Amino acid sequence: MPAAKPFLLGVLGGMGPLATVDFQYKLLAATPADSDQQQLPSVVWNVPQIADRQQALAGSGPSPLPQMLHGIGKLNQAGATHIVIPCNTAHHWFDDLSRASAAPLLHIVDATLDHLAGLPQQPQRVGLIATQGTLDAGWYQNALAAKGIEALLPAHEELQQWFVPGCYAVKRGALQEGGELLALQARALLARGAERLLLACTEVPVALHAIDAPFLTLADDPAQLLAQRCAEIWLESRHSYFSHTQSNNLNK
Amino acid sequence: MPAAKPFLLGVLGGMGPLATVDFQYKLLAATPADSDQQQLPSVVWNVPQIADRQQALAGSGPSPLPQMLHGIGKLNQAGATHIVIPCNTAHHWFDDLSRASAAPLLHIVDATLDHLAGLPQQPQRVGLIATQGTLDAGWYQNALAAKGIEALLPAHEELQQWFVPGCYAVKRGALQEGGELLALQARALLARGAERLLLACTEVPVALHAIDAPFLTLADDPAQLLAQRCAEIWLESRHSYFSHTQSNNLNK
Repeated sequence: MPAAKPFLLGVLGGMGPLATVDFQYKLLAATPADSDQQQLPSVVWNVPQIADRQQALAGSGPSPLPQMLHGIGKLNQAGATHIVIPCNTAHHWFDDLSRASAAPLLHIVDATLDHLAGLPQQPQRVGLIATQGTLDAGWYQNALAAKGIEALLPAHEELQQWFVPGCYAVKRGALQEGGELLALQARALLARGAERLLLACTEVPVALHAIDAPFLTLADDPAQLLAQRCAEIWLESRHSYFSHTQSNNLNK
Repeated sequence: MPAAKPFLLGVLGGMGPLATVDFQYKLLAATPADSDQQQLPSVVWNVPQIADRQQALAGSGPSPLPQMLHGIGKLNQAGATHIVIPCNTAHHWFDDLSRASAAPLLHIVDATLDHLAGLPQQPQRVGLIATQGTLDAGWYQNALAAKGIEALLPAHEELQQWFVPGCYAVKRGALQEGGELLALQARALLARGAERLLLACTEVPVALHAIDAPFLTLADDPAQLLAQRCAEIWLESRHSYFSHTQSNNLNK
């Protein structure tokens, strides 16, 4: 029987590039490690020259799928054993990407809902901060409803006024400005009765942490929960990884 | 004449994994960009299962070269047009890695000295915080001497007492502890007359920023300067990149 390939996490990033780097911090923080060598190994395709996902889903721009498939191919070629996409909206193309990938893709909604299911006290109403594309897809709403949790959604005008300009501010590096806009969106959902928030767009936690928003204690970050899922898989295979690499020199 | 390959920065990381993520933040911060698509494209090999560089150079552990060559191979395969290593000590193997790489490697010392040469007022004495391996190699001292700048070095006992445990604290995620130890090293060099500091080990700026050390205004960070060099190359090719990718779909 051939030895299993050693664990290597492939990260299909670039959507956006800052959220990709932020996700890598989350991977490190989620992994208990006493040395470099115990940390999670990854290969990261952080190529942001990719069609805008929000525009594509709004019908006003080309599909990002060709460039995403290109990245999935590169990650498989590099030896990835698992692949994640630290971008909620990009999960619109999850099934197409899964079919094209030898390495299994881990879904960000699965990681999030497994976490919520494990909470000692389930909230009744969760505010969902996400792009129009993610909201239209209904992944989070459906998964929450299946657990008897109501999803409170941003109004269309709120998205236009706060969410969209907040995200694009993050994408051009204006974290303070982005954080203030996104905080308005978060506070509106809390004011409408949300007990917790799901920050289901990877730009959002980056910006809210930058302004040190006090309501972050009430927020769950799907990217963080996806990072934790990756760390759990790595920890399970860490022992066998070391035995494997000792008997099979990596330089091949 | 075939079109030039589009710019893609390969990052040979994992040494350590946190410094690799920190370097990616520096790349983003060094690149003026109004959108995701204008940010620098990169592929990052962040695989820390690699022999300890400090131990190898001290003669007390195996060489990391085989694993580094493996990473260089992966980055070339992925299409990297330039490669950097955000680890000073690993530059010990720079020539071996360069010979094995189709994509040119950019040297961290070149980026640093070019920056110092451009300062309006050159310091006379610079404190050099680096591993024993980097100090023994003499790259920074020789390059500084060629510009008439004296390098002040940590004493052997200081390295043992402050620098080495400080670095390994960072590697296990204890940034506060690492920062306090490394600050003692920095203050000792300043007390001996250093006008500026070169933080020539990628763990050091991470830790000193974590404790918000006041003397950071006197410090140059070679990893930061290497990131700036990468951003300059990307900015030069950004225009042609976009014309290229419009006529040559990336999905091939």
